Amino acid sequence: MQTAQLLVGLDVGGTKTAALLADARGNTLAQAVVATYTATPDELLGTISRAIRTVLAEVHATPRQIQSIGMGVPGQVDPATGIVQLAVNLNLQRYPLGPAISARFKTPTFLENDVRTAAIGAFNHLRQTEPVQSIAYVSIGTGLAAGMILNGRLHRGHNGMAGEIGHMIVEPGGVRCNCGQYGCLETFVAGPAIVRQLIAAVPEMQNTIRNAGDVYAAAVQGNAAAQAVVQRVGQHLSRAIQWLVMMYDVEKIVIGGGVARSGDAFLDPIRQELAQLRQHSPLAAELLREEKLHLMPPDYNPGLWGAVQLAMGGGR
Amino acid sequence: MQTAQLLVGLDVGGTKTAALLADARGNTLAQAVVATYTATPDELLGTISRAIRTVLAEVHATPRQIQSIGMGVPGQVDPATGIVQLAVNLNLQRYPLGPAISARFKTPTFLENDVRTAAIGAFNHLRQTEPVQSIAYVSIGTGLAAGMILNGRLHRGHNGMAGEIGHMIVEPGGVRCNCGQYGCLETFVAGPAIVRQLIAAVPEMQNTIRNAGDVYAAAVQGNAAAQAVVQRVGQHLSRAIQWLVMMYDVEKIVIGGGVARSGDAFLDPIRQELAQLRQHSPLAAELLREEKLHLMPPDYNPGLWGAVQLAMGGGR
Repeated sequence: MQTAQLLVGLDVGGTKTAALLADARGNTLAQAVVATYTATPDELLGTISRAIRTVLAEVHATPRQIQSIGMGVPGQVDPATGIVQLAVNLNLQRYPLGPAISARFKTPTFLENDVRTAAIGAFNHLRQTEPVQSIAYVSIGTGLAAGMILNGRLHRGHNGMAGEIGHMIVEPGGVRCNCGQYGCLETFVAGPAIVRQLIAAVPEMQNTIRNAGDVYAAAVQGNAAAQAVVQRVGQHLSRAIQWLVMMYDVEKIVIGGGVARSGDAFLDPIRQELAQLRQHSPLAAELLREEKLHLMPPDYNPGLWGAVQLAMGGGR
Repeated sequence: MQTAQLLVGLDVGGTKTAALLADARGNTLAQAVVATYTATPDELLGTISRAIRTVLAEVHATPRQIQSIGMGVPGQVDPATGIVQLAVNLNLQRYPLGPAISARFKTPTFLENDVRTAAIGAFNHLRQTEPVQSIAYVSIGTGLAAGMILNGRLHRGHNGMAGEIGHMIVEPGGVRCNCGQYGCLETFVAGPAIVRQLIAAVPEMQNTIRNAGDVYAAAVQGNAAAQAVVQRVGQHLSRAIQWLVMMYDVEKIVIGGGVARSGDAFLDPIRQELAQLRQHSPLAAELLREEKLHLMPPDYNPGLWGAVQLAMGGGR
């Protein structure tokens, strides 16, 4: 294998960076996860390089064999220039991450925001079995955002902010959000918000509840306060799904992200709310069918595969 | 003028049907408004024919000189077949209105939903002065809906339902909407809803308040109950605008429809709410600038001009 035909997909996160090495047809050759260091941009470059070298080493390949690199990054990304802005979790205010990686590996590098990258991955996953053309990929993790695919293409919006559903105001005058607004959806539906709501209700759980998964586990075990939180999250999220459908009329709503890994405990309250909406309204019955909702299987990483797609297509 | 180069645009409404005759370059040659008769599909066809013949007569032209006809219709429209469904105000359950008009005038006829047609008209109006690529055209009249233009093209959605913001649920368990759901945005923000809210607060105004314009006029004259309604409408609508921006990230939000004709009395509460959002949040300050909002001037009819565009381009 001497021609440059390897593709590298990267999911760069605040604590971990995952890499996937694929051949030109999209077959997995190697995978790796490394810890992310963010003290300086150089340390971040070091992290990404290490992830890339690790997957290359697994198949005894060299950087020269890389055809291109795709990367999902948590922040505002300009795909045309490769400049990343406001990537709080990566400690980058404004940095030309794409050009820096391109220079280091002497290969084209394509960047996109992490949720949008995962939306591309989720879309391609669905396309394996269904001829869908439009999806909303809703990612629920540290934050809440959607990546929109319309007519088979990523919809970025005028400022690259399309799908920022986490910052839709749902409770005017509510809890202040990181964005400065009050009562954003993200103050109810996101990992930290879910934990906060339970601890606000039961302060003594402060030491046992570390993440949203713990809240869902407590709810399954019968904890009433946790069940109330889970119920409220389900109500807010089902309403957000109703809004996405009424606004965009997409074929599928695909749900992913860390919080969604709680599976049925996470999804059941949403399913119940949507079933209730369908019961009363022909419009809801038509637009919010049960099969509209699709949970990403935990063994498929849409962020990594979306990054490989970026590498393949050079962005969309 | 013997070659077929005239364009006819029609805005078919439940009470009135407007027609505009234009030349191939889009110059107005004649305009007319006729009463709409809807007892049978034939009467509706008669109405539309009368509107067309009226504008033709004004310039002594014949149907043979028509190159094509464009039509905005209040209902679910399949632009490919010209079939109209669920057009309650036109008394049509399901009818091939496009083919019927085509056959009668022996010319291609292009149909689209009325709000989307107006969105095309609004977009072209803005394009005269600004190189915009994406807008949401929000129409507030008997109902509330948005027509979405993305990358210069109409976004219809998978079921042709994109932009149905009137049916976003904003108050679960609220007033029942025509669509069967409870607490839709349209139960707060639309002509009939605005009238209903004031009469619910002050039943004795039942005989003096006929439409939303009367409510806005009463508010301007200092009626406290009317002011409260107007304020509430402004809050709901500014929130809907915030949602549209966070979801779609369009360049402009253009507002039109009968209710918007109340001008500043209508727009001021919305401007105030958006100013407050900008004050607290850098995100809102960036995405919700004052110039984001654009009110359709009352002397421009986006529905008619959108229909002329449909006739020109044969739909988008």
